[in-house]
Amino acid sequence: MREPDLPEPGLVAIPAVIAAVRERAPLVHCITATVSMALVADGLLAAGARPMMTETAAEAPAMTGLADALLVNLGTLSTDGAQGISPTVARSTAAGHPWVLDPAAVGAGPVRGALAQELLGHRPDVIRGNASEILALAGRGRGGRGADSVDTPAQAREAARDLASRSGGVVAVSGPADLVTDGAREVHVNGGTPLLTRVTGTGCLLGALTAACVAVADPWHGAIAAAAWLALAGEQAAAAAPGPGSFRVALLDELDALTAAEIAARLELT
Amino acid sequence: MREPDLPEPGLVAIPAVIAAVRERAPLVHCITATVSMALVADGLLAAGARPMMTETAAEAPAMTGLADALLVNLGTLSTDGAQGISPTVARSTAAGHPWVLDPAAVGAGPVRGALAQELLGHRPDVIRGNASEILALAGRGRGGRGADSVDTPAQAREAARDLASRSGGVVAVSGPADLVTDGAREVHVNGGTPLLTRVTGTGCLLGALTAACVAVADPWHGAIAAAAWLALAGEQAAAAAPGPGSFRVALLDELDALTAAEIAARLELT
Amino acid sequence: MREPDLPEPGLVAIPAVIAAVRERAPLVHCITATVSMALVADGLLAAGARPMMTETAAEAPAMTGLADALLVNLGTLSTDGAQGISPTVARSTAAGHPWVLDPAAVGAGPVRGALAQELLGHRPDVIRGNASEILALAGRGRGGRGADSVDTPAQAREAARDLASRSGGVVAVSGPADLVTDGAREVHVNGGTPLLTRVTGTGCLLGALTAACVAVADPWHGAIAAAAWLALAGEQAAAAAPGPGSFRVALLDELDALTAAEIAARLELT
Repeated sequence: MREPDLPEPGLVAIPAVIAAVRERAPLVHCITATVSMALVADGLLAAGARPMMTETAAEAPAMTGLADALLVNLGTLSTDGAQGISPTVARSTAAGHPWVLDPAAVGAGPVRGALAQELLGHRPDVIRGNASEILALAGRGRGGRGADSVDTPAQAREAARDLASRSGGVVAVSGPADLVTDGAREVHVNGGTPLLTRVTGTGCLLGALTAACVAVADPWHGAIAAAAWLALAGEQAAAAAPGPGSFRVALLDELDALTAAEIAARLELT
Repeated sequence: MREPDLPEPGLVAIPAVIAAVRERAPLVHCITATVSMALVADGLLAAGARPMMTETAAEAPAMTGLADALLVNLGTLSTDGAQGISPTVARSTAAGHPWVLDPAAVGAGPVRGALAQELLGHRPDVIRGNASEILALAGRGRGGRGADSVDTPAQAREAARDLASRSGGVVAVSGPADLVTDGAREVHVNGGTPLLTRVTGTGCLLGALTAACVAVADPWHGAIAAAAWLALAGEQAAAAAPGPGSFRVALLDELDALTAAEIAARLELT
Repeated sequence: MREPDLPEPGLVAIPAVIAAVRERAPLVHCITATVSMALVADGLLAAGARPMMTETAAEAPAMTGLADALLVNLGTLSTDGAQGISPTVARSTAAGHPWVLDPAAVGAGPVRGALAQELLGHRPDVIRGNASEILALAGRGRGGRGADSVDTPAQAREAARDLASRSGGVVAVSGPADLVTDGAREVHVNGGTPLLTRVTGTGCLLGALTAACVAVADPWHGAIAAAAWLALAGEQAAAAAPGPGSFRVALLDELDALTAAEIAARLELT
């Protein structure tokens, strides 16, 4: 096994985060897009975590205390979900649980824009989005094309640093290589495959994996570990899958199969 | 084909229940968790039944008359679903259709707790849940960890018998071996695979298969047949699938492929 | 490559419609059934298009302008979706975008019946449904059995022509062979496989593919291209898949893999 060539010594701990998710099986409360709910839940299960998906204002705040971490993804943003989000975040943070904000399609819809700004005030431990979403959330862009980015992580670099400073957390920008920053430090997670953009909800799944990782690690290492896990599982899956349908299946198998040793050997952080 | 070793002679009829589902293709009205709706519908189709998924108070009661049986799963419990459930159950039972209650995550959320108690008054033909849900529904436990049980079927044995007596129906407790009771009789359905817990909604699917089976058979034989069908299909799928993604795919294939002769030969009831 | 034997010369352009979808990657706004939302989105991605799935009255009208076409499928018809549909259609047509109406289960529920009639007034570019739905929408039948047709495309032929005349658009009737008419012309798209009826949401996916095709072509060629694309991908998938679970996976792979040359060679229009 080669020694990974890492931009800072602490990152040698990344495979241990993934091992801790499998060992502790954190319960992740997900308020997320309807369209990708099943992939998010199946992805968490494949990773060794557990999902909980309730989103109504009547139940989500009462149930979030059972969980170890919370994911809020603005996704399809049903009326049920929109009403349940703020009280759930308030209850979750009051209980001391970490949470991840995925500002899906922010910039495109009027409700999600205002809600995302309000949620920033609850200081998410990690914000995960594509470059257009990070730019829009930082007030520097008008959002992407639906769920798709029209910008690159490099273009969102300053916006990501700003948001990290404002929220006091970590910001992860998805792209061909993911950019993760806490405002001071910055790392690129290389790898992945274009097939990840041919399956609905892989970005949402990354948000959920991030929540699982920050349930067992600090936001900096958690966000990097989640990005690396999905990228490496995606690479492995792409090698075996002839198309997007079989890639989705193989991705779940690889989230389960990838060993800590494989992750350590193949991790590419710059 | 070996003669199955069964705890009572009537259980030799179990494979015939499965054959009847395939022959009569019952239409099962499902009010169920958003996260597993697709698996539930695809599982019913694979089994030879047909799904109908509308849940609003405006339409579900009016449409349930078209169906042959009803499944109510408290799952994610959207506001739409929560409002549609009681009038739909009332209309369905008035039409003489059998129905199955799956008290998912009961004990964890305030709305589902009260609703589940109210629904018990409508005398479900079968109640299907994991051990923690059955205990919570019987007023003997505080529920599980989200969708996961923290108790064993053996621990829920008395609660299951109580509920069967109160509801006048059958209670099926999922676990490594499923326990089915009508308050007097009791049988264990052995088999299955831990991979069933690595895919979202296999419990919900069992509820739906149970509804399909009670559309063509009495609740006692229907509940046992559904549990055996899923367990044997799961075993077969696990033999071929390297991970949770491919297991989900193979499970659907096996629900379709399993023959009555295979079921008779491999059925393990104790 | 054999010269296809086509009922009219213009149909030689069908493979070019599919190539244009892949080249232009139209963004399709889908208001569709919850149960099949993931298949619809994954199918669009596999075909080379892009999905956008928001449905609330608060956001769907504001976001539909980003898209290139709109699909309205009455499917599970959540309260959120029901309220968002009319204003979204109004905004989309005002922006000059083509739209497709899939009157799922019309005839069965009271809300969808009235809503479908109202939507006819917005002149959908294509109406796609099974025979029972087309008959019910035309006021000539009482609908099917949930999502299933109890009639054949031949029985719905006059109803389809009527609807095409009333709406000024194209009507596509799904069945063993799909019937497409604009009121004057008529063509049958042959092919497909019974496995398409063993997976939830393949009809919804056809509606979405139709929307993707009418984003890049006129409604007549778009509706035919979408029907041919799904039928040929389905045939190819059925050849490789042992059951409904693996068929669903292979269908997505084949939507992606099918080349324009294969489509031209295998197209069967009569």
